Amino acid sequence: MLKLDIMTTKKEELIDITQRVTGAIKATQIKKGTAVIYVPHTTCGLTINEKADPDVAADILLALKKAVPDSLPYAHLEGNSTAHIKASVMGSSLQIMVEDGELQLGRWQGIFLAEFDGPRKREIWIQANEDSLF
Amino acid sequence: MLKLDIMTTKKEELIDITQRVTGAIKATQIKKGTAVIYVPHTTCGLTINEKADPDVAADILLALKKAVPDSLPYAHLEGNSTAHIKASVMGSSLQIMVEDGELQLGRWQGIFLAEFDGPRKREIWIQANEDSLF
Amino acid sequence: MLKLDIMTTKKEELIDITQRVTGAIKATQIKKGTAVIYVPHTTCGLTINEKADPDVAADILLALKKAVPDSLPYAHLEGNSTAHIKASVMGSSLQIMVEDGELQLGRWQGIFLAEFDGPRKREIWIQANEDSLF
Repeated sequence: MLKLDIMTTKKEELIDITQRVTGAIKATQIKKGTAVIYVPHTTCGLTINEKADPDVAADILLALKKAVPDSLPYAHLEGNSTAHIKASVMGSSLQIMVEDGELQLGRWQGIFLAEFDGPRKREIWIQANEDSLF
Repeated sequence: MLKLDIMTTKKEELIDITQRVTGAIKATQIKKGTAVIYVPHTTCGLTINEKADPDVAADILLALKKAVPDSLPYAHLEGNSTAHIKASVMGSSLQIMVEDGELQLGRWQGIFLAEFDGPRKREIWIQANEDSLF
Repeated sequence: MLKLDIMTTKKEELIDITQRVTGAIKATQIKKGTAVIYVPHTTCGLTINEKADPDVAADILLALKKAVPDSLPYAHLEGNSTAHIKASVMGSSLQIMVEDGELQLGRWQGIFLAEFDGPRKREIWIQANEDSLF
């Protein structure tokens, strides 16, 4: 696998990592197959969403804060339970197809690291699987 | 990859695409491996859930509307922020095993396109990866 | 694919299946690639989160119960609509990288079966795909 380091800068933010992932996949010289992207953490996640308007990322954080309130009687003593919960809601991995050496994203899609307990240094793990039948 | 066009008919709906995906996978003549299913959009997602009773799909939409209210002070000006958020909660891809040329779904499982900003023409991308060790 | 049986013991619980999955992957003798983990059910899901402190699992269940209230006017007559909804929010599959014959989890990560309609006998399906380019 290949590892990318990402420095997050806020408690909660969606960081657009599309260009870094695209570059990493290109460097592998994979022609056709699937890219797997994975975070080895438990208080951040990965998601694909609109990258053109940063307000979309802000609205995702707003809605998650409403759905997973800071004020519930959480048991975990580190005070970051909402970050763990939101990480599970977003998920820890993505899979994206590769054709002709290029990551195949939809027109409006970007790849985001969803930080819920920053700022921190985070790792992204990437794998290129060259195995598609068609 | 293989592409399917799906016409959605409502603002929000879960459309059962099980048969279309099953047929597409069968046509690839893959024997054993993994099917990857992907939506190249940012206001719809994919999910696996019960297909026998359509009330389950309706209840998923009901609960998502409660968890992600239309009334929050969203910043994104297009008015479809809840669709973006719900798309991230459902996720943009699925992976399903293939054995003996057949997609391996559980007895009650169906594959759904989760439309949150329709009606629209949507694409589903499908890949068959023939690579399983056992 | 390989199948594991898991007996759940409560209506809702997150069961740590890390060791069983790790052992199953090891037994396949895969060297490098991706493990796919899948539940063939519609009222439980899979998630990766912190395994050191069981309070994290409890907090995830607490927050999901708040976000997906038991009291909504659900249409599905079996009375387990919240279980279906939470299963879709968690997701039905995981993918985890394998290097040097070992499942690559982050330091704090564990693999959980998220039961929302137990107690029941559940199956976990596992596949090892040996196909990584790097």
